Amino acid sequence: MRLLLMSNSIAPGRGYLEHAHEVLTETLGGVGAVTFIPFALKDHDAYTEIIATGLRPLGVKVIGAHTAKPADLVRRAEAVFVGGGNTFRLVQALYRTGLMEIIKARVADGLPYIGSSAGTNVAGPTMRTTNDMPIVQPPSFETLNLVPVQINPHYIDPPPDRVHMGETREERLLQFLEENDVPVVGLREGTWLERSDAKLTLGGIDAGARLFQRGAEPRDISPGTDLSHLLSTRPRFDATDRAR
Amino acid sequence: MRLLLMSNSIAPGRGYLEHAHEVLTETLGGVGAVTFIPFALKDHDAYTEIIATGLRPLGVKVIGAHTAKPADLVRRAEAVFVGGGNTFRLVQALYRTGLMEIIKARVADGLPYIGSSAGTNVAGPTMRTTNDMPIVQPPSFETLNLVPVQINPHYIDPPPDRVHMGETREERLLQFLEENDVPVVGLREGTWLERSDAKLTLGGIDAGARLFQRGAEPRDISPGTDLSHLLSTRPRFDATDRAR
Repeated sequence: MRLLLMSNSIAPGRGYLEHAHEVLTETLGGVGAVTFIPFALKDHDAYTEIIATGLRPLGVKVIGAHTAKPADLVRRAEAVFVGGGNTFRLVQALYRTGLMEIIKARVADGLPYIGSSAGTNVAGPTMRTTNDMPIVQPPSFETLNLVPVQINPHYIDPPPDRVHMGETREERLLQFLEENDVPVVGLREGTWLERSDAKLTLGGIDAGARLFQRGAEPRDISPGTDLSHLLSTRPRFDATDRAR
Repeated sequence: MRLLLMSNSIAPGRGYLEHAHEVLTETLGGVGAVTFIPFALKDHDAYTEIIATGLRPLGVKVIGAHTAKPADLVRRAEAVFVGGGNTFRLVQALYRTGLMEIIKARVADGLPYIGSSAGTNVAGPTMRTTNDMPIVQPPSFETLNLVPVQINPHYIDPPPDRVHMGETREERLLQFLEENDVPVVGLREGTWLERSDAKLTLGGIDAGARLFQRGAEPRDISPGTDLSHLLSTRPRFDATDRAR
């Protein structure tokens, strides 16, 4: 299994995907084309074009999953890239097109998977740690489960001069842990998780990530940290809704 | 019908609910006790105590809906106050306890309804414009529909020195409008909507609110603005999930 789960696709002052060229090349391992899943945004053509431009320096062709039957395109893909946008819209589309099951099966079988933002969030067992607004109602919050931990992309620290009364990101993730016993990796901008079979590593810029686990203080982790132990997590989610 | 839908319960530099004493008194119209719905937060006793303290200067008693069978308490309530916290948790609890239907029926019948934050969000037809993290999966995103427009509490303008790559609130609400044709009132901190039968008014501090409608530029509205025309809205939500 080969995964690259990025917090985001742009680092300040860099071009699209430029901050991750090296690890993208490594993850793609010489494939000629990537099938891009643009469903988290509304304009699929424009979004696919942006990704094609971003990956052009790597010599990789990009095929939009919306340009034919998405299930067929992913069944014969050499690699998939799931882009960011609204996670609820993405999850709804993954169920509607049948891609949720197809991607899961093909990635288990070795298909390289690249995610950014919403595309990274859905690599966890559920979308319960997305930052996005629930603008549409997907049939389920369950997602690809390519790693057994939750991911919070775009993790952001509380501002020092806080006046706004909304919750901080840390407070939201602690509320998640009140209801569910599953570790959460909060990926700051410019960072990513890399999985190669049984090995899980944090990569990217120095800001690193913040790890949240029930019963422990949240703690910062640095790029290069080996997180492989998290792959033996047995997630326990609140299942009140299923008990109805 | 008598509603007070507040963005939040604290204004900077003021005590709990202090910014809204006058309009709270008016909405409650002399009732002796308010039934408080604390289910958006985890600690129901502590939360009820905070609200009891906040409403004490108004001479109103507060009964936590968790202190007996919630449905029974709301059936004989003189007024309800639905508190903020996590909207997904709140909606899950409203369905589980049967309160979604009971509150809807009683408010239609004249029971005064006060909401703050998540409690304001659920007064709309759906929770699709909440800012909260989907930490639990409610059976549906449909909510009380006490007004036919969506509300976004804690509305916040984009920071002038933007470096974070996440979407701004305005961008999120425009994504909502891409999928649904329903006006959204973005209530800035310290503001509220007040409904008295066929009259809907914006109240609170000068910052006011921002109104989003499909096909129109978002625009600021000032406290005192009559929004009664919004009560004739016929909301049209994306129903892709129901078509499955």
